Amino acid sequence: MALLEKVTRLIRDNQLITDRDKVLLAVSGGLDSVALLRIFSQLKGRFNLELAVVHIHHGIRGSAADEDLDFVKCLSHDYNLLFYAKKVNSKAFAKSQKLSPEESARILRYQAFEEFLQKLKFSKLATAHTASDQAETVLDHFLRGSGSLGLRGMQKKRGIYIRPLLELTREDLEQYVKENKLIFRHDSSNEDLKFRRNRIRHELIPYLKEHFNPNLVETLNRTACIFSETESVLEAVSEKAYRSLVSLQKKNEIIVEIDGFLGYFRVVQKYILFRACQALEINRNDLNFDKVDKLLSIIAQKKVGKRIDINQDFQLSIDHDGIIIKRKASEQIPQMKFDLLDSNALKFGGYELKWSITKREEAVEFNKNRQIELLDFDKTGSNLRLRTFHPGDRFIPLNFKGQKKIADYFSDRKIPHHLREVTPILESPAGIVWLCGHCIDNRFKVREETNRLLKLEIKESSNEF
Amino acid sequence: MALLEKVTRLIRDNQLITDRDKVLLAVSGGLDSVALLRIFSQLKGRFNLELAVVHIHHGIRGSAADEDLDFVKCLSHDYNLLFYAKKVNSKAFAKSQKLSPEESARILRYQAFEEFLQKLKFSKLATAHTASDQAETVLDHFLRGSGSLGLRGMQKKRGIYIRPLLELTREDLEQYVKENKLIFRHDSSNEDLKFRRNRIRHELIPYLKEHFNPNLVETLNRTACIFSETESVLEAVSEKAYRSLVSLQKKNEIIVEIDGFLGYFRVVQKYILFRACQALEINRNDLNFDKVDKLLSIIAQKKVGKRIDINQDFQLSIDHDGIIIKRKASEQIPQMKFDLLDSNALKFGGYELKWSITKREEAVEFNKNRQIELLDFDKTGSNLRLRTFHPGDRFIPLNFKGQKKIADYFSDRKIPHHLREVTPILESPAGIVWLCGHCIDNRFKVREETNRLLKLEIKESSNEF
Repeated sequence: MALLEKVTRLIRDNQLITDRDKVLLAVSGGLDSVALLRIFSQLKGRFNLELAVVHIHHGIRGSAADEDLDFVKCLSHDYNLLFYAKKVNSKAFAKSQKLSPEESARILRYQAFEEFLQKLKFSKLATAHTASDQAETVLDHFLRGSGSLGLRGMQKKRGIYIRPLLELTREDLEQYVKENKLIFRHDSSNEDLKFRRNRIRHELIPYLKEHFNPNLVETLNRTACIFSETESVLEAVSEKAYRSLVSLQKKNEIIVEIDGFLGYFRVVQKYILFRACQALEINRNDLNFDKVDKLLSIIAQKKVGKRIDINQDFQLSIDHDGIIIKRKASEQIPQMKFDLLDSNALKFGGYELKWSITKREEAVEFNKNRQIELLDFDKTGSNLRLRTFHPGDRFIPLNFKGQKKIADYFSDRKIPHHLREVTPILESPAGIVWLCGHCIDNRFKVREETNRLLKLEIKESSNEF
Repeated sequence: MALLEKVTRLIRDNQLITDRDKVLLAVSGGLDSVALLRIFSQLKGRFNLELAVVHIHHGIRGSAADEDLDFVKCLSHDYNLLFYAKKVNSKAFAKSQKLSPEESARILRYQAFEEFLQKLKFSKLATAHTASDQAETVLDHFLRGSGSLGLRGMQKKRGIYIRPLLELTREDLEQYVKENKLIFRHDSSNEDLKFRRNRIRHELIPYLKEHFNPNLVETLNRTACIFSETESVLEAVSEKAYRSLVSLQKKNEIIVEIDGFLGYFRVVQKYILFRACQALEINRNDLNFDKVDKLLSIIAQKKVGKRIDINQDFQLSIDHDGIIIKRKASEQIPQMKFDLLDSNALKFGGYELKWSITKREEAVEFNKNRQIELLDFDKTGSNLRLRTFHPGDRFIPLNFKGQKKIADYFSDRKIPHHLREVTPILESPAGIVWLCGHCIDNRFKVREETNRLLKLEIKESSNEF
């Protein structure tokens, strides 16, 4: 049968499944997914598959949805397949997350799919999306202003998700269902034009086919292919650029070489930014068009010291080293009070501070390692505070007489901007004690008369990848 | 005034014009172009420009079009600008070229523009296209299934053409025209929904704005920017690939290294093909989607000897050397009869054949250059024929006894397939005389008894770029 061969070819050409794969079929009960179920039960032997059915009840559409669930349950039984269902509350989720009902249902559905896959130890999840759905998706993305990422539409394979019907049209499936006398459920909400997708399907596409392009569905599927390829090129170019430009990559910080960055086309610059933000686990939704535009224009200005928030946790700044994307200082180093007598170590925002207090018994040997310092404990006292730099902070650098602005101290020593605000500062009620890793305050240094020694050591936690 | 500043900024940011540029303004008499005329007359001093007006009469719309011409003529006079007009017959052209009326008018318009620019020695031609036109163009191309090349829409600058109003909307211009009390002509054909563009403008865009995206025009202009960038990346990647892969580039032939070619993404492969065809002056219209698809699939098969027509003049073939795109042999070397006594040289399809007939006076010295041969003129006779290889051709190679298939002779010597069919073959009524550049036939070689010598020399015309 031609249709089965077409699906088989798509599966083979795109390596959607391999021998003995365990495939979960997403079945809503509608025409497309009922056809998917039948098609896979026919292909089961050919690919030596283990199959099961999963159904998501979105907690809307009242009894009709309950009946859908029962229908798919019976259907699975008829096909002798295990059946799994989950009920989610997509209305409540939409409200709490300020999402459209469609978007909310989509997110919850895919979450549930992933839970099932993990729990059941299945390797793939097949959905019944067709070329008709693909055309709608491409058109929808185009109207929203997408670039090649959106115009490539749905992929035949994306991680565990496979779409084996993506080259069949809705009409192909209708005919198949008719020929095989399959029963399916009508979802009345599919007709409601208040849903964007339904208007695209029932109104826009028929209109465009009539007046502009009778082969629109085919054309849009070809468009998806073209941009899938285009996207691959952009990704390859950008990935190469990204690797050559990133000079530092830590859990909370990435530095990108700025001159090289500016040498790339703008669209590649965007991908590099996305890639960096992805590595820092910054939500892609925080990078809308306007935000990215702003980030790129700030980078283009190349003004050292300039900074801009990416979201509430991360900041992009321009420094001598390049483009710095990192967790904001306030996030990284919380302001905190502590008592040296309570413990002997403290971990905070990527650092570890250790200390010991000892009676001075002999001459003190100083070392050059600015990560370790000796201080006069009777001067510092045990009640200390940790914080980061504030503009206007002053201290008396070791062996200096007068106060100096910490900002000037940083500048004189050419400490990169992005490091200044993550330098922990240790403060006692009597003033700043230690610019950790850089310099102690002269008032707290060990003198002839020092009785008790406070030995401090600061270490950056190893957070390199 | 904000609008003038916007146009000035666009001109400066995109370097559309330079000081003392000579700019021809394309003025139809409609709202947009009347605004363009006024805007440029205001900017004239700022950019130190020389201006003139050009108007194209498309030979349709009867007296209304004649009145448009008169109107623009008067307007130019009011602005104290030289006025040039040309009448073209776009209806007849559409018919003869099987084009839509819109496409026909467009082609003739741009042809006329270029004639004027050359004749008048102007450096730029400015059109009144707006962001609204851009949105329509992008939407139109999308519905036709374009890739990034089409979705980038019109460019602000393309060669001599500049579009300084491309960031203003039609509404901006309407307001400007109103504020400045400008008079313009209505073109009633702009309302006719039988023209695709009018339906997009008056029906589709308003519908999409109402139901899908109120900022559609802005969104589509952003889409154009995104794909303009995307296209630049594809072009840069492909140009680099092209340069590294082309091992031979002559006027009628290009060879592209095949393994390297197949290593690129499909979309890059397409660009390389386009680039090669462009170098051979193959019309882009001959490379539609299906044709390119076929070419790529033949290349992917990598079957030596396989060939396919690109258009009626050019052929793509696979050979040991790589992908060969070249003028078809039948085109390149016409079959022709000639008499050696009529002249002493002949040029044909990239070759030059020279000859001389002399009395044999002394011993003959042979050389190793297979481009030059000596033959027995009394055996060849003067009535010869030039042609190319036919399957089944046989001859007796020099110093052989029996006949040999020319195909086998080529194979034995590993002559690349693409050279076999452009090898001229010289034939006398008594049989094949010379496989030019390779081997003479034993029957015609110079012997003891040879009386008159025929000296032949074949040369490839230098057609290297």
